[in-house]
Amino acid sequence: MTNLLISMEIMHDVFKTYAKRDGDAETLSKRELKELIQAELPGFLEKCASKEKENEEKVKQLVLGLDEDEDGKMNFTEFVIFLTAVILMIHGFEPSPCQKTK
Amino acid sequence: MTNLLISMEIMHDVFKTYAKRDGDAETLSKRELKELIQAELPGFLEKCASKEKENEEKVKQLVLGLDEDEDGKMNFTEFVIFLTAVILMIHGFEPSPCQKTK
Repeated sequence: MTNLLISMEIMHDVFKTYAKRDGDAETLSKRELKELIQAELPGFLEKCASKEKENEEKVKQLVLGLDEDEDGKMNFTEFVIFLTAVILMIHGFEPSPCQKTK
Repeated sequence: MTNLLISMEIMHDVFKTYAKRDGDAETLSKRELKELIQAELPGFLEKCASKEKENEEKVKQLVLGLDEDEDGKMNFTEFVIFLTAVILMIHGFEPSPCQKTK
């Protein structure tokens, strides 16, 4: 298995690990997404905001901004698009996933 | 660094490795994408098609189908969306990236 294939499997596994917590393994709830971000993307929220209250608002913005089918939950494709925004942010590209996409 | 962060970096690095071959490190040309698929996603094209001719057609479809800004090239976000389709296909979901998205 190539590194790319392994990486894709890891992304899928991480998604499933958190998505299944509420019994629906196909989508991430806001709470599951926040738990995932805090554990798997340590420091990401801190980069987006300093105070705790603001972090929660940022996560809500993230989920709403990327929740294309607007069901308040994030499916795997929306999750990967979110990760893409995070990678681009880490590499200094906009739009930053911390701002709601206009 | 968490596995998720490492995986994201690997995806970004693999993209850059192939994208820079023609001097434009921000996008993958069709040729670069085909080289990437053959090396990094071994067997993927074979799964999509049996004969060589058909493989080329499939890659063209893939690039056109996912080339949202229709410049004949694939930027990082389009690349990650393509990978998402590949992961979903591997895990038995549709739409298969081998068919042109309607």
